[in-house]
Amino acid sequence: MPIHLDYLNGGPLSPPVRAAIEEALVSCGNPSSLHAGGRAAAHLLRRARGQVAALAGARPDEVFFTAGGTESNAWALRGLAKPGSHLVVSAVEHLSVLQTAREMEKEGWSVTLVPVDAAGRVDPDQVGRALTPQTALVSIQWANPEVGTLQPVAEIARRVKPKGALFHTDAVAAAGRVPLDWAAVPADAVSLASGPLGGPPGAGALVLRRGTRIRPLFMGGTQEEGRRAGTENLLGIAGFGAAAEWAAGEMPSLQEKVLPLRDRLVRGILNIVSDAGFNGDPTDRLPGHLSVSFPGADAEALVLALDREGVSVGLGSACSAKAVKASHVLKAMGVGDPRALGTITLTYGRQTAAGEVDLFLEILPRALNVIGTRGE
Amino acid sequence: MPIHLDYLNGGPLSPPVRAAIEEALVSCGNPSSLHAGGRAAAHLLRRARGQVAALAGARPDEVFFTAGGTESNAWALRGLAKPGSHLVVSAVEHLSVLQTAREMEKEGWSVTLVPVDAAGRVDPDQVGRALTPQTALVSIQWANPEVGTLQPVAEIARRVKPKGALFHTDAVAAAGRVPLDWAAVPADAVSLASGPLGGPPGAGALVLRRGTRIRPLFMGGTQEEGRRAGTENLLGIAGFGAAAEWAAGEMPSLQEKVLPLRDRLVRGILNIVSDAGFNGDPTDRLPGHLSVSFPGADAEALVLALDREGVSVGLGSACSAKAVKASHVLKAMGVGDPRALGTITLTYGRQTAAGEVDLFLEILPRALNVIGTRGE
Repeated sequence: MPIHLDYLNGGPLSPPVRAAIEEALVSCGNPSSLHAGGRAAAHLLRRARGQVAALAGARPDEVFFTAGGTESNAWALRGLAKPGSHLVVSAVEHLSVLQTAREMEKEGWSVTLVPVDAAGRVDPDQVGRALTPQTALVSIQWANPEVGTLQPVAEIARRVKPKGALFHTDAVAAAGRVPLDWAAVPADAVSLASGPLGGPPGAGALVLRRGTRIRPLFMGGTQEEGRRAGTENLLGIAGFGAAAEWAAGEMPSLQEKVLPLRDRLVRGILNIVSDAGFNGDPTDRLPGHLSVSFPGADAEALVLALDREGVSVGLGSACSAKAVKASHVLKAMGVGDPRALGTITLTYGRQTAAGEVDLFLEILPRALNVIGTRGE
Repeated sequence: MPIHLDYLNGGPLSPPVRAAIEEALVSCGNPSSLHAGGRAAAHLLRRARGQVAALAGARPDEVFFTAGGTESNAWALRGLAKPGSHLVVSAVEHLSVLQTAREMEKEGWSVTLVPVDAAGRVDPDQVGRALTPQTALVSIQWANPEVGTLQPVAEIARRVKPKGALFHTDAVAAAGRVPLDWAAVPADAVSLASGPLGGPPGAGALVLRRGTRIRPLFMGGTQEEGRRAGTENLLGIAGFGAAAEWAAGEMPSLQEKVLPLRDRLVRGILNIVSDAGFNGDPTDRLPGHLSVSFPGADAEALVLALDREGVSVGLGSACSAKAVKASHVLKAMGVGDPRALGTITLTYGRQTAAGEVDLFLEILPRALNVIGTRGE
């Protein structure tokens, strides 16, 4: 029986998500078509838009479907900050934000990178001090996918909005795990992705507060109000919608369900490896997320050794899992290479049973034993 | 029993396509993950890449998956033509090409629009004359999705390549209907889409000849060789691959199968409406594609009247079906409004039975009768 502790990178689809996709498989028409097949597809699209809007605390007409978090982030940066303007991002953003910002810098934008503390947390006052009259956009994540730290997005938004800049937040890791309260966090744009929520990969959304002007990403069609043209990914969007509805329904009891699992994991891991380290903010963090460092171990070898025993865990950041170098997030937090290179990510949720955690803790010593430690 | 004559805009998924998607539903992991779930997903991705490459006559490492034809077209234009350079496109390109080119013109590129003749055909000599030393890219479709005309892409490529410009061709309508022979047509980039091929909507590819340099579309991940970052749309891509394989296998017998249907449709329609007009090149055209004008009729009303009788047909262009104004393609061909506004598109294929065509011809007079003609 395989044990999945890598839900943030995607995982087995839940029954309601599969059912929504199966339904879309049957009426797999083009929502722009006028005939019955088109209308059936348009109905599924409308339902999914409502489900995603509800999770984001937004109106359906504020949801613009994309192919995922990376596209949503790139679109927000390039679409909201006019050429030549100033951009503020944190050092621990997803690479889709950081690399897009770096590219934009080469093209004439100016970019300020705000550092983080040892817990991976952005200081709202530092964001405030980075703002200039030229600042068009601030992009700071809601939660960090690698170390689980929740960012003080409400305080950041309060610094940014009065200065006239737009605030974008990458909520890919946060959505479905903590409430996205748009009343408390007056963001202008929020990135979401289906996979980390429990939906199929390759679907996502940029949620844009009504009235926010954005440059279209793709032109030549009326889809997504003409802002992101192209026939819709109906299967992915239907699954994304169902996953959003399911996550929203389960969220109130999520913390209560996963906190005991966290305690069990932390205690169990420290019993096995007394110098194991846990990364990210110890309390202000995503439920169901643990970043663990085994100093001197080779995390890639550990992921593979655990895999041979039927346990799936994450390595490094969600979208660059194959790059075996120290994560930019851990570096920005001041974590040295020996610890950073021995870091794995455990993400679990409503589907995770206590017995799975116990089994993982039984398997872990064997896996660590097999790989030895780096340099031995 | 519904009759589907709108395959170019998508349609019921064939059993092999559904089977491939069902398989991806089970192993719906993240291909970047190192563990077994990731490897299973990576396997499906690799298989689909090979299937699409085979249809395009390309190597698997020349296939870059996208969210569809619109994205592929936008990426080709912006990614291949460096800022400030000259671009040549035809007047009958898909709106994703035309509107992107128009936007690029505002941003400093220069653009030449090459006209077409009454059959919607581009003259290769006119393309040749449009080339300047500043021309970075020529983008001319392989076949027109609205009127079915095949463009002389081989002759166009022969004019373009010696001048040092790149040649991109939008083969969204052509793929799976006519062979994409890269030996005869030395294009540098080819756009493909899953839906028009019989796969699920929202997946596509840009096929790039080895060594062609393109600016990345999305950054921040290693997917698609770092050129189009973001977790892959596994369900869509798996279905796209299966559709490509299926279409490639059926193509040799396609023309033979659908030509009698075409004759039956043309004769039948002229028996009902003697002044009906057929648009596009009469012989050099896509198999399974008919663009019919009923002068004075309201095409939107006709599509809806046919729909009420269980018949699905297309209206206008694939991606702007809701825009009830004369198509830019028919306009460029010199077709006047009374005829253009009464135009529907019938696309059919290997799945279409002669009995369905006969039934459509039985229903058509009733539908025309219900709607009357414009202005009556």
